[in-house]
Amino acid sequence: MTVDEAKEALRACRDEIDGIDRRMVALLNERSRVVERIGAVKASMDMPVYEPKREDAVYANIVAANGGPIPHESVRRIFERIIDEMRTLQRTRMGAK
Amino acid sequence: MTVDEAKEALRACRDEIDGIDRRMVALLNERSRVVERIGAVKASMDMPVYEPKREDAVYANIVAANGGPIPHESVRRIFERIIDEMRTLQRTRMGAK
Repeated sequence: MTVDEAKEALRACRDEIDGIDRRMVALLNERSRVVERIGAVKASMDMPVYEPKREDAVYANIVAANGGPIPHESVRRIFERIIDEMRTLQRTRMGAK
Repeated sequence: MTVDEAKEALRACRDEIDGIDRRMVALLNERSRVVERIGAVKASMDMPVYEPKREDAVYANIVAANGGPIPHESVRRIFERIIDEMRTLQRTRMGAK
């Protein structure tokens, strides 16, 4: 592979990644809109935001869905961050417990 | 809203989240396969894995794509985790620098 071929291959890969990232941002926002609906239900019923059993179910779902190449532990760490950010959003927007 | 209606609303929201999460796991793996291709090109050309300018471009792309309700800083923190996990994967799989 020449340097120019390598550069072209990297450019094509990066365009692909940018497209995947945009779809991921759209999904994250879709997820957060559902989380806001959950927050609204919980706030109206005076239910707690944090439910450890539900979080276990979320992790079980993503691990079952993960066919690799990303290792389960990596997917789990990524979702820990996602869930943490969404919990903060749910707390600040809905004023729920 | 009755307790039963609240439970049913939460159940429906959670089904929706589980579906979104499965699509997200698929996208993360799609992204990691492209990252592996990048790693292979870089390894063959003896190029470094870490390129700060490219990471800036990744963040610029996701912030531009983010229409909310997730705040930019939250999306950025989520992608910091994603990029960090993928950099580790790229290093371990490809043996690149």
